[in-house]
Amino acid sequence: METKKILNGIDTVRMVQTVEAIKKQPELARFEFRAKNRWDTGGTNHSKIDGFYGAGREDDSRKKPFLFTNGEPPVLLGNNEGANPVEFLLHAAAGCLTTTFILQASARGISISEMSTELDGDIDLRGLLDLDASVPPGYKEIRIKMNVKADCSDREIEDLIDYAKKHSPVLNTISRPVQVTVKRAAP
Amino acid sequence: METKKILNGIDTVRMVQTVEAIKKQPELARFEFRAKNRWDTGGTNHSKIDGFYGAGREDDSRKKPFLFTNGEPPVLLGNNEGANPVEFLLHAAAGCLTTTFILQASARGISISEMSTELDGDIDLRGLLDLDASVPPGYKEIRIKMNVKADCSDREIEDLIDYAKKHSPVLNTISRPVQVTVKRAAP
Repeated sequence: METKKILNGIDTVRMVQTVEAIKKQPELARFEFRAKNRWDTGGTNHSKIDGFYGAGREDDSRKKPFLFTNGEPPVLLGNNEGANPVEFLLHAAAGCLTTTFILQASARGISISEMSTELDGDIDLRGLLDLDASVPPGYKEIRIKMNVKADCSDREIEDLIDYAKKHSPVLNTISRPVQVTVKRAAP
Repeated sequence: METKKILNGIDTVRMVQTVEAIKKQPELARFEFRAKNRWDTGGTNHSKIDGFYGAGREDDSRKKPFLFTNGEPPVLLGNNEGANPVEFLLHAAAGCLTTTFILQASARGISISEMSTELDGDIDLRGLLDLDASVPPGYKEIRIKMNVKADCSDREIEDLIDYAKKHSPVLNTISRPVQVTVKRAAP
């Protein structure tokens, strides 16, 4: 008989089983995520996200791919065909912080009734345009405000925020220098 | 009379005007991008992306917000409600590299007939789960293969790839340590 204990929408029995399996067999923790992107025109392009490798095998749970369109607003020479890439980065950061928080709260037996975040970040286009070598092309800083309601003390919430900030894969990718290699496919 | 000269879907006259305006008034280059996210349940949450500040004013070009849903696959305790945050990060990286490439090719008068990218990146879940302090929670490395067809030499394509890699705001954000502050909103 399958036992289920759901907290914050997370099946905590399966979560503990997953953690125990990884402790015994660390290679189960190794994941490879993927995307394919195609340029349309101007600042518009679209990605297809489908399979990935993880928990020791190719995943086959997705019946159809996810499709997303990058675009640019008029002030950046586009027609708002989609959010732009630096905005998608904020969406990724928000989601990853949130899910890391929820997983850890569930592991600690804390019930969350509400959670939302607001993000903003500064970019100086002189970096992208190569007008000033001292200006980095990317975000100078990203600020996140979290609104959380939970059945625990303020101190426990602060501790969960600290955990999520340090352990979120997307936030960690942004916070430390990650190697990105770009190569031309054989023409 | 408005003059238009379109290359790769980019209005290069407006592009040059934008660059000249920023050279004269560097504060026009300052942008602030934003997102709002709300947790649904488990590993599912959604973002609303709408206004931003840039070119000296609040943008009002978007008539309705962009909405995106983060989800997780079953192996990560979800039901594929959406792509997951680390996959959205790849979509952001792909789009930003592509648009940076296209803008620079257009500035150089190079016509691109086709461009696509394939991305993959490694994540070891022991970081997220705090099972091994020596394992970073984020991407260990992100690899991007670019397929480009253009009316220029292979060397010029290599040079554009190098430019795009160094000047893409998302790639630069991933490649260097960017400060992320996370604070609790007043409860």
